[in-house]
Amino acid sequence: MSFIQTDTYALRGYECDANGLLSIPALMNFMQESANRNVIDYGIGINDLAQRGYGWMLMRFGLRMHQYPHYGQHIRVITYPTFVEKYFIHRDFRVLADDDTLLADARSTWLVFSTEKRSMVPMPDFIRTLTPPADVDSLPKLTLKPDFQAIPVVSTETQSVTVGWFDIDQNQHVNNVSYVQWLLEAMPKEMLQTSELAELDVIFRNESHWPDQLLIRADADDALTFRHRIEQAETSKDVILARSRWR
Amino acid sequence: MSFIQTDTYALRGYECDANGLLSIPALMNFMQESANRNVIDYGIGINDLAQRGYGWMLMRFGLRMHQYPHYGQHIRVITYPTFVEKYFIHRDFRVLADDDTLLADARSTWLVFSTEKRSMVPMPDFIRTLTPPADVDSLPKLTLKPDFQAIPVVSTETQSVTVGWFDIDQNQHVNNVSYVQWLLEAMPKEMLQTSELAELDVIFRNESHWPDQLLIRADADDALTFRHRIEQAETSKDVILARSRWR
Repeated sequence: MSFIQTDTYALRGYECDANGLLSIPALMNFMQESANRNVIDYGIGINDLAQRGYGWMLMRFGLRMHQYPHYGQHIRVITYPTFVEKYFIHRDFRVLADDDTLLADARSTWLVFSTEKRSMVPMPDFIRTLTPPADVDSLPKLTLKPDFQAIPVVSTETQSVTVGWFDIDQNQHVNNVSYVQWLLEAMPKEMLQTSELAELDVIFRNESHWPDQLLIRADADDALTFRHRIEQAETSKDVILARSRWR
Repeated sequence: MSFIQTDTYALRGYECDANGLLSIPALMNFMQESANRNVIDYGIGINDLAQRGYGWMLMRFGLRMHQYPHYGQHIRVITYPTFVEKYFIHRDFRVLADDDTLLADARSTWLVFSTEKRSMVPMPDFIRTLTPPADVDSLPKLTLKPDFQAIPVVSTETQSVTVGWFDIDQNQHVNNVSYVQWLLEAMPKEMLQTSELAELDVIFRNESHWPDQLLIRADADDALTFRHRIEQAETSKDVILARSRWR
């Protein structure tokens, strides 16, 4: 059986940013919620995996914003798995307005880890054998190693943030959305006020835990393109690397 | 005409905390959203006031948590104005489970400020004359000056936080919920892990702005009662004072 998850979200005031438009963290939370519901239908939800000693880990996330919805608008988030491989499962998201205008789309790549070993394992059979929906236009898979990950982020201007209690979920994992929020909030003031995020490409590298201290820095490739790095303050280990494009 | 606002919220994963229960910031955001919808019905919404050169400011908020709902549960948030006075308007919230169990209730006190003068004004007539619903059991008004505001918070252990882009709303005001989130996240680790908030009483004293730096500190009155202070790092002005009780 294949499952396509569709959820309608009516945008609440606090889900919009200072421009009155849907905030990126709120959108990513919607996507995460809909993905969670979709994996439950497939019998591969967080609890299904936990019972077998496994957990999901997001490895790659690529978002394109085509048009930002505003307060009060209803949006549809549609998500489904697209490709299942030996080590990775890919998932697409489409975000539509009432009139079917494509507002945003996203691609993501997930892996399974063993909770005991804290390391990646091949996709267990009960996941490997799932059937992605056939009647959808899948987006191309994200590359596992995006080009920007090879270029060090060297800016000496850092912002510091502490992983907070409300950043962690029931499995004590830091919500992936928190990282993106921190990365965006560390952007230059004028960018946030006068530009909007057009594209975001993220690679998740290492876990962080509550209440770790993290450092955030960014290099500008040009006026509208940035490479971001969040690292553990104590160990300097990469937590995430990302590239953003603005308009 | 009187209006009672009732909204149903189905709890999403990211609206729950590490214990799998509704997070206080999420609940307060629901309350704020429902209050916004209620004031729109009364013709005294944020935009109605802005057009006349006014704004709402939350001055007092008192929350009691009776029972925490969990992920997937549907809750009803009911809110309405209770008393209108020369300078203040009072609003109650009730949060009910599907079977009408009272999960939480809250009282709040609001004032109107002039956007030009940035100071409090008497309630304009178009607000003063509104009719609160008659067929409700109003909670007693919150005192304007709670006893804890007279006791200085002296702890030298401070946590620092920067007002972030996603903490401000379309009117460039810091979301009141952000303050409460920071105050809770600054609590001792063990309290967050092993206790739950039973009561929270807040007085909002001075505005803060993006990207101000704030300092958060707390004194314990006993093992389960704390007094909190958030202040401007630069000026040491009080931003909020609060008392929390835990169980």
